[in-house]
Amino acid sequence: MTANIKTKIPELSLRFAQEQDAELILELIRALAEFEKLSHEMVADADTLRRSLFGRQRVAEVLIAEYAGSPVGFALFFHNFSTFLGKPGIYIEDLFIQPEFRGRGIGREMLAFLARVAVERNCGRLEWAVLDWNTRAIDFYRRLGAQPLTEWTVYRLAGGALQDLSRRF
Amino acid sequence: MTANIKTKIPELSLRFAQEQDAELILELIRALAEFEKLSHEMVADADTLRRSLFGRQRVAEVLIAEYAGSPVGFALFFHNFSTFLGKPGIYIEDLFIQPEFRGRGIGREMLAFLARVAVERNCGRLEWAVLDWNTRAIDFYRRLGAQPLTEWTVYRLAGGALQDLSRRF
Repeated sequence: MTANIKTKIPELSLRFAQEQDAELILELIRALAEFEKLSHEMVADADTLRRSLFGRQRVAEVLIAEYAGSPVGFALFFHNFSTFLGKPGIYIEDLFIQPEFRGRGIGREMLAFLARVAVERNCGRLEWAVLDWNTRAIDFYRRLGAQPLTEWTVYRLAGGALQDLSRRF
Repeated sequence: MTANIKTKIPELSLRFAQEQDAELILELIRALAEFEKLSHEMVADADTLRRSLFGRQRVAEVLIAEYAGSPVGFALFFHNFSTFLGKPGIYIEDLFIQPEFRGRGIGREMLAFLARVAVERNCGRLEWAVLDWNTRAIDFYRRLGAQPLTEWTVYRLAGGALQDLSRRF
């Protein structure tokens, strides 16, 4: 077990997830998918998660937020890379807090901790994506000083289209 | 040296970059920054690149495209992670071909190779971002079957704002 990390909120502590947290992480991802109205895209199970996050080739890290000893949120992040800076950054794939625990500053504490991790690891950036209809989150991010990359759009190749292209090589 | 990888275009071969390619990669990134009209954001030098790409903690990989034996383009990519799929993907941070070598199918060969790498590594997705004014690239990506994530915007915390937030923890 990694140590609990104290925060400015007395009831709130953070910790890095361990292999035995795979089921908990899955539950939190399911709650997030529901909130984002994307449950139909959620196909992960505890076994694939366990292999991907805690197996030999770990590509991502998970931070768990506990309030009064109970898990209430998580952040999943990995390192990306800026060619223009010539160094890595941190990309937050998910940041989620159960609805009944919002408005207490938990998200800000998690982001501040991740900013500190980024600075300590000599990363040049902390980035994440937000759904355009999530105005509450957008206002919060802007107050923290985050800037939207409005001139960029992400393109995705997945499923059959990815298989098709791979066979063309 | 890693072996050259043959492609469907007789003059074109691909290879994974090695440490001695740091200066070449820097030149190609500079050419890309110029094309993207973002030269003012380009602060990487060969030493930071060498450390980040070929040091102990490698977070990204670089593919070099050679045409008739000369380097004409590159792709820099790293692994991202989809919580909904529960497994990694490949994110292409940069894909660049020198202007005078465009229109010969080099970009398609590079993307097809990266799609194959993604499938072989059991990744669920191949993703990248494109500048909204780059309609030529967008048309090309759409023909390959890539879908734009139009409902998402990336937010970035960098420089002083990142330092400020890190100190709040």
